[in-house]
Amino acid sequence: MREFAADPPAEEQVGDALRETDATVATAESCTGGLIGSLLTDVPGSSDYFDRALCTYSYDAKMELVGVDRETLDSEGAVSAPVARQMAAGARDTAGTTWGVATTGIAGPSGGTPEKPVGTVFVGVAYRGEWGTGETTTTVERYEFDGTRLEIKERIARQALSDLLSAVERRRYRRTR
Amino acid sequence: MREFAADPPAEEQVGDALRETDATVATAESCTGGLIGSLLTDVPGSSDYFDRALCTYSYDAKMELVGVDRETLDSEGAVSAPVARQMAAGARDTAGTTWGVATTGIAGPSGGTPEKPVGTVFVGVAYRGEWGTGETTTTVERYEFDGTRLEIKERIARQALSDLLSAVERRRYRRTR
Repeated sequence: MREFAADPPAEEQVGDALRETDATVATAESCTGGLIGSLLTDVPGSSDYFDRALCTYSYDAKMELVGVDRETLDSEGAVSAPVARQMAAGARDTAGTTWGVATTGIAGPSGGTPEKPVGTVFVGVAYRGEWGTGETTTTVERYEFDGTRLEIKERIARQALSDLLSAVERRRYRRTR
Repeated sequence: MREFAADPPAEEQVGDALRETDATVATAESCTGGLIGSLLTDVPGSSDYFDRALCTYSYDAKMELVGVDRETLDSEGAVSAPVARQMAAGARDTAGTTWGVATTGIAGPSGGTPEKPVGTVFVGVAYRGEWGTGETTTTVERYEFDGTRLEIKERIARQALSDLLSAVERRRYRRTR
């Protein structure tokens, strides 16, 4: 069905925007487990802009692969804005890409708390300008999604692609003004 | 639909087999781009046995994340049995898991050659026994799948889960004889 949809799916739009801005992306995925990387690589030619996905499910993987601090994990919990921020920046920096995207959340059905119910997710988007300019930005948004575990995973992955697309487009607009 | 299928899907069977044998797994995915990690984490409680997925799309990612040799990439090509072998063993060793699973193939629609047409994939499965026993094994199988890019990706991911399940079950049978 997807191939005949009226609008191109987000992974294609992201791919076009990255290619047109000569940019690359890496992901650090916890609750999505690789789904964003899989969606991005559904698009033929995605090796032009997709470098790697780091599916950092365990604490160890978060620390070893994208440099999340043990202290932050212990004090804030893995599902938190600071961890999403470190994951996104860590994906960008370890892969040497323009963009880093991260997800950390609770896909359920268990693991929810009153403060962070099932469906809670933090999505991080990190950017780095040309090497040497020193310009880096990282933003984090919090969302809550309903649904089954698989629906929540899919919604989180789609939201992350949408957040990345918005960020790429905003930057492109600023560049071309 | 999946939740009501007569047989549990492969990712659940693999999960049960890993949990029952007190084993863990990490993946190194090229053509599947994270889909195996995503399928494994579709199962609630998968953090018991799933450590990380390394979606090593670029040459750099293959070398940096799972220690594939530059020489092997240059001489054999990224889609080859030796690279699948190094990826599977590298995933297991860098993550410190019992099992490592790797895919490297051509999802298409372009990129095929007479020797390696679109749909060609090498699936590697690596095992390590208890630390100190020195027992390691890595096997690689070559497959060719038909279909669209998305169908080929899905078939490769399912085949890799099936190969992992077979290997876990074979080892369990040997252990309990």
